[in-house]
Amino acid sequence: MSEGRPGSAPDAVTEELDEAECLRLVAGQEVGRIAYYGRFGPTVLPVNYRFFEGSVVFRTGAGSPMDEDLRTGIENAEYRIAFEVDEFAAGLREGWSVLIQGSAHHVTSPEECAAVARAGVIPWPSGAKNAYLRVRPSRITGRRLRHGE
Amino acid sequence: MSEGRPGSAPDAVTEELDEAECLRLVAGQEVGRIAYYGRFGPTVLPVNYRFFEGSVVFRTGAGSPMDEDLRTGIENAEYRIAFEVDEFAAGLREGWSVLIQGSAHHVTSPEECAAVARAGVIPWPSGAKNAYLRVRPSRITGRRLRHGE
Repeated sequence: MSEGRPGSAPDAVTEELDEAECLRLVAGQEVGRIAYYGRFGPTVLPVNYRFFEGSVVFRTGAGSPMDEDLRTGIENAEYRIAFEVDEFAAGLREGWSVLIQGSAHHVTSPEECAAVARAGVIPWPSGAKNAYLRVRPSRITGRRLRHGE
Repeated sequence: MSEGRPGSAPDAVTEELDEAECLRLVAGQEVGRIAYYGRFGPTVLPVNYRFFEGSVVFRTGAGSPMDEDLRTGIENAEYRIAFEVDEFAAGLREGWSVLIQGSAHHVTSPEECAAVARAGVIPWPSGAKNAYLRVRPSRITGRRLRHGE
């Protein structure tokens, strides 16, 4: 059912994206948003990231609220989080979004630290951001919003 | 502590935004991301919205996964959610983000339906989006990332 929108472009059509296309889009962006349950409840914050060897890698300050809120305090137990990347053209009312669901893994072992350092994530904000976080997707979904012919 | 970034612009400085500035920025955008705990765990999805009479108003399909996941099934009980709006200039590595935390309120009474209809939210995707949701902020925080002089 199309809702009336007098004098403007027709509504856009939503199409589901497959995993390969989702990951291609995620690999091409720099800023995503991590959502988790923090000390003030549900929280979404942008981070600059790299998609590296099948996972999202970003950095935060060691001991920062995000770093602490994402530590379960139990070895090998990780919080489930969501990571979102999108791109929209406001004028066109078109765009796409990808949602990655997975666990927030703190990189701590020397081997893994060396590996993720190769991702080359340089935080945009100043200040030490020495805590590396890695999200390996357990579920990947995405949609594109586009006007028909 | 500034981390080395040879040959590139200096790190950006993060400044906290006050509530008034946050709301001014949110009022000027069209797309935000709602984060909530959905059927597949933490979820973030973009929606086009209007900031109207102090709250974020958007629409979704009645009976859609988002609509259902945000219903507690208990009268007057609402889930806490997060709503994020941002704008980043990748080339400049600058931008801002605002995080609104509050409850997801389903608009059901005829009076409130009439009120939020005045917000003029027209969903970008096609299809009936007859469920109005409203988020009244209980906590508003924001940051701007900007290079110094």
